[in-house]
Amino acid sequence: MFKKLSTVLVLFVVTLLVFAPIMRAEEGMWTFDNPPMKQLAAKYNFHPTQAWLDHLRLSSVRMNDGGSGSFISADGLLLTNHHVARGQLQKNSTAEHDYIANGFYATTPDQEMKSPDMEVNILVGMENVTEKVQGAAKGIKDPKDAIKAREAEIAKITKESKDKTGLRSDIVSLYNGGEYWLYTYKAYTDVRIVFAPEEQAAFFGGDPDNFTYPRYDTDMAIFRVYDNGKPLHTDNYLKWSAKGAAPGELVFVSGHPGSTERDETMAQLLVQRDIVGPGVTEYLQRRVADAQKFAAQGPEQARLVATTIFGLQNSLKVYIGRKDALADKAILEKKQADESDFRARIDANPEWKKEYGGVWDTIAKGEELVKPEIKGQIFRRSDSRLLGMALQIVQYVTEIKKPDGERLPQYHDAGLQTLKFQLASPAPIPVSLEKLYMTTALSLGTDKMGKDDPYFKAILNGNDIPTTVNTLIDGTKMGDPAFRKSLMDGGEAAVAASTDPMIVTARRLDPVVRANQMRLRDTISTILTPAGEKLGKARFLAYGRDAYPDATFTLRLSYGTVDGYPYNGTIAPPFTTFYGLYDRSASFSNKDPFDLTPKQAAALPKLDLSTPLNFVTTNDIIGGNSGSPVVNREGELVGLVFDGNIESMAGDFVYDGSKNRTVAVHSAGMMEALRKIYGAGALADEIEGKK
Amino acid sequence: MFKKLSTVLVLFVVTLLVFAPIMRAEEGMWTFDNPPMKQLAAKYNFHPTQAWLDHLRLSSVRMNDGGSGSFISADGLLLTNHHVARGQLQKNSTAEHDYIANGFYATTPDQEMKSPDMEVNILVGMENVTEKVQGAAKGIKDPKDAIKAREAEIAKITKESKDKTGLRSDIVSLYNGGEYWLYTYKAYTDVRIVFAPEEQAAFFGGDPDNFTYPRYDTDMAIFRVYDNGKPLHTDNYLKWSAKGAAPGELVFVSGHPGSTERDETMAQLLVQRDIVGPGVTEYLQRRVADAQKFAAQGPEQARLVATTIFGLQNSLKVYIGRKDALADKAILEKKQADESDFRARIDANPEWKKEYGGVWDTIAKGEELVKPEIKGQIFRRSDSRLLGMALQIVQYVTEIKKPDGERLPQYHDAGLQTLKFQLASPAPIPVSLEKLYMTTALSLGTDKMGKDDPYFKAILNGNDIPTTVNTLIDGTKMGDPAFRKSLMDGGEAAVAASTDPMIVTARRLDPVVRANQMRLRDTISTILTPAGEKLGKARFLAYGRDAYPDATFTLRLSYGTVDGYPYNGTIAPPFTTFYGLYDRSASFSNKDPFDLTPKQAAALPKLDLSTPLNFVTTNDIIGGNSGSPVVNREGELVGLVFDGNIESMAGDFVYDGSKNRTVAVHSAGMMEALRKIYGAGALADEIEGKK
Repeated sequence: MFKKLSTVLVLFVVTLLVFAPIMRAEEGMWTFDNPPMKQLAAKYNFHPTQAWLDHLRLSSVRMNDGGSGSFISADGLLLTNHHVARGQLQKNSTAEHDYIANGFYATTPDQEMKSPDMEVNILVGMENVTEKVQGAAKGIKDPKDAIKAREAEIAKITKESKDKTGLRSDIVSLYNGGEYWLYTYKAYTDVRIVFAPEEQAAFFGGDPDNFTYPRYDTDMAIFRVYDNGKPLHTDNYLKWSAKGAAPGELVFVSGHPGSTERDETMAQLLVQRDIVGPGVTEYLQRRVADAQKFAAQGPEQARLVATTIFGLQNSLKVYIGRKDALADKAILEKKQADESDFRARIDANPEWKKEYGGVWDTIAKGEELVKPEIKGQIFRRSDSRLLGMALQIVQYVTEIKKPDGERLPQYHDAGLQTLKFQLASPAPIPVSLEKLYMTTALSLGTDKMGKDDPYFKAILNGNDIPTTVNTLIDGTKMGDPAFRKSLMDGGEAAVAASTDPMIVTARRLDPVVRANQMRLRDTISTILTPAGEKLGKARFLAYGRDAYPDATFTLRLSYGTVDGYPYNGTIAPPFTTFYGLYDRSASFSNKDPFDLTPKQAAALPKLDLSTPLNFVTTNDIIGGNSGSPVVNREGELVGLVFDGNIESMAGDFVYDGSKNRTVAVHSAGMMEALRKIYGAGALADEIEGKK
Repeated sequence: MFKKLSTVLVLFVVTLLVFAPIMRAEEGMWTFDNPPMKQLAAKYNFHPTQAWLDHLRLSSVRMNDGGSGSFISADGLLLTNHHVARGQLQKNSTAEHDYIANGFYATTPDQEMKSPDMEVNILVGMENVTEKVQGAAKGIKDPKDAIKAREAEIAKITKESKDKTGLRSDIVSLYNGGEYWLYTYKAYTDVRIVFAPEEQAAFFGGDPDNFTYPRYDTDMAIFRVYDNGKPLHTDNYLKWSAKGAAPGELVFVSGHPGSTERDETMAQLLVQRDIVGPGVTEYLQRRVADAQKFAAQGPEQARLVATTIFGLQNSLKVYIGRKDALADKAILEKKQADESDFRARIDANPEWKKEYGGVWDTIAKGEELVKPEIKGQIFRRSDSRLLGMALQIVQYVTEIKKPDGERLPQYHDAGLQTLKFQLASPAPIPVSLEKLYMTTALSLGTDKMGKDDPYFKAILNGNDIPTTVNTLIDGTKMGDPAFRKSLMDGGEAAVAASTDPMIVTARRLDPVVRANQMRLRDTISTILTPAGEKLGKARFLAYGRDAYPDATFTLRLSYGTVDGYPYNGTIAPPFTTFYGLYDRSASFSNKDPFDLTPKQAAALPKLDLSTPLNFVTTNDIIGGNSGSPVVNREGELVGLVFDGNIESMAGDFVYDGSKNRTVAVHSAGMMEALRKIYGAGALADEIEGKK
């Protein structure tokens, strides 16, 4: 009776070994222009049509708070994670109405609650502009001139697109710059909150269970997108699957993985391991410690800072996972073997060798040049949202007077709409948090870089940190969106004349920041960008076009199956049930962070406890995929991605199909919760098309 | 909200570091003459009385099938694990009545079912006889003569004890021979089966979940001990705790850990790692593979061989765990550091150094001499129960004519009662299994040792393996207990005259086995035993008497607390509940080995699903502790040990309190199952003293 499962365990190991030198099954975050048709045909006999792909793409949404989502009704209902919606819930909350602690449900349309600064994007157009972008610099000898020519070309392409279509138009660099694409997005900014469970239900198990599985989280939230003040009507939405996906079933994730470093060279990985990782980890740990001290002052402080702690601890767990991955001998050996194989393929062809053989050494040299700047990149920061906006305004009024191609990258025409939307946000910026974050950043920053570092000198201006923080934050009017708008409208003159202490400081800071940015940009644009581009081209030569690019927070398709994996000396199940939620809670005597919410406790007699709640799939995803839909062959929504397991933390660098798993909320579990825990039958009916 | 738990996780790590060079909290399998009073007083302010200790000792039972148990009623009810009772259930089962698959419950005393060959022992006396044993060899120069003198003394002590008390009397060597104790046991052989659940309920999760936690197993069985045909009346039984132990509560385990190698030197560990481990693993894997092929032939074959596969896979998981432990750099470094510390303490005292400083090198040399014999120790075997008994009879009739002190160790007077009981067992020995096991053993053995190895030559006698196996097993009458008895009673003449093919083979085999045994014994008794004894004495000098000896399948007391531990990137709960059973089953779509039994499925509406089912404690245990009671400060039974977690597999060599856990069935869970799943209310009432 044990034979079968032992065989499964053995097979996991064998699979990993057999496929080690080539791409592992189900690896890849594929662009929609190059879906893994061959793999799907060979392994699953599945042949998605262009219409199938288009419908999934157009039903997928990028949440510019840093996640993904999908349309789930003809009237603009948008499903994403609670933790993606969390910022907007926080911004709507007050000491009286804590929508994070208590959840939210709009039983009528007029109760649907605006998100102060949520923008969502739908990828409506994709055009390969590699030749245009790379061609712009052709024949130009000086690398700095070349980069300028290319930036001008990029600005031109995006402006033309924006002018022609009215759509947000971005140039996306893929395959280390081996390809450039013009992505056009339909953007919506009237995004209203319809439903969110209590955070404790969404994030049951808290920081300990974060990035692990088995899980029992209702990490969902539902918005409705409005267009011209009315619910957006769309045909591009995902039909809800009541039963979800069965173990072994083929499923897809369509979403926006943030970033990976899988195509980086060993030299780059070692910089990540030895410099970036430890620095960022120290920064995050310091922020968590300071924020926790603040939270300990009282319940209102705890409420205010909770989103921050939540996000920081999440990042910290990621960075610790990355550290473990890069400390794993097997992973580094695998990466080294991959690189050796890649180099050997290039060196085997004399022409390729001549053109590309030196690129790894060039990148290694470039990394050496960048190294001294990394510390500053990590620690030169104020973490003040107000000072950040002040600097944006100071730079904005100057930059927009330049031709688009000559501006700092963040002020190109293509991005101005989003920038203005963010600066106009009415969301309150709590003074106490500003002071907390700025104090941490300045204390740690001056510890690390010295008080004489020009960046901190410009901020402190001869004062100590407490004086600086209090003077700037108490004295500024930057918290008022109307004030920010008046400065932007007033242009250079208004900014130059302003005596607001944040603006005054930002004026001092601007040249320092520009100088720092330029120093790094020089190395990157003259050495690393061209070398990376060569690396991307070399990869096409060595391995063909049957590859996927590193993640770039643009839309990707991944495929996989619902499947458990070896864990803890045994096997993790393909899905969990509501039984498990009540087990884990009871197992910890219902203590934080394993406490049930009052609604969950009250609903117990009504629930079918065997309903699947969370499940795992072999899909290859990464942070940014939060909120992505999981769909079946029919394109129906069977789940909602909200996490990766602890083993997936190595996914930044390598995919291991034997144990890297996507963790998702099950469609049946979401329905059970909506109807029986939250009494949201009307919403459930709308989603299931029953209204 | 995450602060507290993060702190817990950090503390685990710190604890481990701080206490690293000395004994970790809660480490130790203590003898009842030397309980950890200091630790209990200091850490828990608990001061067990002699009466408390005596009551627990006398309520504890050694199950000579290889486990532990305890009395739980005044009328001889004995609680142990299902997997300890499994052999006796199997021996009572037939194709018609499968008590393993279906469980068993005697609703009236006359239904209680005899165990064919189960002997249980209660440790009633402990006497330190170190001086007598060590003194016997004083002044004798030749190590072989010394060892003979000592063996004669041991035989004398045990014979005197047996004659005087009528009790089973064993000499137990502790602390590598640093101490010798005379243990006297009350033995019972009329042990009847009262209750067992279905194996699937006892071993839910099967081989994958074996040695892991969280678990959801009802791994219990209840016997009743009879004395002179009547239920044994005893005051020494454990009161049942209805509520069990709370997280953080101090608990004790009283049982019979089989063996550990914690006091072995690095040289010995490396022999374990490099020779013993791989050899035993290969042997087990081959046996599992052959047994699985046999099981695949049909349901009756599968039933017959199930106990064997169960045991082999269990051992295999242990050996794989041991392998992982010895492959763990941190563990080996820890062991090396401990040994270096030990040697430094001895070398720091010139007198000690002179006497003991060379002992590590002596042991290393002894291991070198033993090495060539290890392969033979592992692979020279027939795995035929019938041939094994034939050899016992051939040797028995010769040995009992010698003075007790000169016999082979297994034929001393002290052990004869048990030997005769085993040889008289009426349990049937299935011919098909005999053939299966013998074929595997002879095939693997001749592969490894060659067909000309005297051991296999003696068995095969010029024939091939299939012929040998069939001739011996089909032609022998050794399966009949009366035949065995007639040979034993007939003595040397009867054995010499027998033409039974097994006896004939055993006569050829006897001198070979003796020669092999003597070769090994020479090295062990002249080098390793004296050196081990020195090591034990040196340990007392270096670390004092505040230590526990390696496990020897004798009664030990361990203490600990109910506590979760870091696992899978998060924390494992202190206990699980029935909710978890139904979750894990549903999570695997109720598929083998995660299927509920019909009784479990039917009982669902009646159960309080939040009842604790299994729990974990920091107690330090090892295989052999299966079936041990877990008791609280009041000496009440709060649980039933049935496993260790996967992290405890390193426990053979080192105890790591941060994650080494004892896994037990909860007293509340057992009651819930007895009353609501198995309808065994009368038995539950008797246990709870309600009848």
